[in-house]
Amino acid sequence: MSLNVQYEGSRRTHLRHEMSANIRRCAYEQLAAGGAESLSMNAIAKKLGVSGPALYRYYASREELLAELVTESWEELAARMEETAAGASRLSAAERFRAEAQAYRRWALDSPHRYRLLNGSRFGTGALDPERIVPAAHRTMIVVLGALVEVSSPRGLRPPLTPELSAQLLAWATSRRPDSSVPPEVLLRGLLAQTRIHGVVSLEIEGYFDQLGIDADLLFDHEVDALLA
Amino acid sequence: MSLNVQYEGSRRTHLRHEMSANIRRCAYEQLAAGGAESLSMNAIAKKLGVSGPALYRYYASREELLAELVTESWEELAARMEETAAGASRLSAAERFRAEAQAYRRWALDSPHRYRLLNGSRFGTGALDPERIVPAAHRTMIVVLGALVEVSSPRGLRPPLTPELSAQLLAWATSRRPDSSVPPEVLLRGLLAQTRIHGVVSLEIEGYFDQLGIDADLLFDHEVDALLA
Repeated sequence: MSLNVQYEGSRRTHLRHEMSANIRRCAYEQLAAGGAESLSMNAIAKKLGVSGPALYRYYASREELLAELVTESWEELAARMEETAAGASRLSAAERFRAEAQAYRRWALDSPHRYRLLNGSRFGTGALDPERIVPAAHRTMIVVLGALVEVSSPRGLRPPLTPELSAQLLAWATSRRPDSSVPPEVLLRGLLAQTRIHGVVSLEIEGYFDQLGIDADLLFDHEVDALLA
Repeated sequence: MSLNVQYEGSRRTHLRHEMSANIRRCAYEQLAAGGAESLSMNAIAKKLGVSGPALYRYYASREELLAELVTESWEELAARMEETAAGASRLSAAERFRAEAQAYRRWALDSPHRYRLLNGSRFGTGALDPERIVPAAHRTMIVVLGALVEVSSPRGLRPPLTPELSAQLLAWATSRRPDSSVPPEVLLRGLLAQTRIHGVVSLEIEGYFDQLGIDADLLFDHEVDALLA
């Protein structure tokens, strides 16, 4: 293989990556403007000045493009959470947890269209790739558990954990990481961190608390403190 | 006005109501099959064997039909909550709250497509009518607060309620019902009941806990008991 062919190959790969990224950027803009309903392959092709068939060489279907957006969003959120944890490594575990919770919330508030996509999509159905989504969701959970496991002298759970749920939590942790030694109470706190924060954030991005005249900041802080209490 | 004209008028009103109900039933079936994206006025007209223009005499646009589905869903959920509370009136307040929480969850599990619609829609935007949605959401909250306010000797909130959030909660209650005497701690518990239950249920309908191997029943029961603790 001549150097010229190698160069051509790497240039093509580069252009291909650039085009894929442009397609996804266009798609996110459409989602931001009108939700998942407004995502249109034709409109993307038109915007980028390429033909329909050219576009379908990158993403074989609208479904496939949507799946890629969901997966990429999970991965970006995971990376954001890891950066936040690293940046807060000198803080106390409780402060680190607060910073992580706010980073998660900020990601959702900055791109509500992507947050809706991320949580409105089912693992293992359609074109979604669990081989990428599950690890990304897992990375986010690892970050959260890292802070929660360190929270000094956590008070006992109220109500106490039942043996049945405890066994399921341990089986979940072991399936993800066979050497896991995270206690079931911390695993439950991690799972509740996810459901409770999602409960507030998913209603906040729809303007629900504005409607009630409640400052979402205050409600969110209360929930985060309750998880640490 | 002759009796005949009166009869004709009431018959027309009846047929009109029947047709509207058929349109909505068709629309819900489409939502159940393919989500909000799949809602199509043309497909509904075809299914009901009427012309496009005839259909638009009932709902002037797809947006208007969708808004009616959201509003009707809120009202049906409110009615379900009120029936549950009435049916559980002889139980203890804690048991009544558990029954209400399960009724809410069951409604979502029975029709996830309607639950997604209900919480993915913004009050006060588009064709949504806050004059109907806000009262329906309010009826649901009244039911929940009715049980929570009676829970015998509620332990103090952990963490305690801040004065700022307390003031906002009281202003919210007063705006809805000027003679309200529900304490701010109970109002917060009511709001947290909503966000926490939504947090679990909205992830449950997407199959999230199946993915983890966690029985959603057990997690849900824990959250409900935590709200009563």
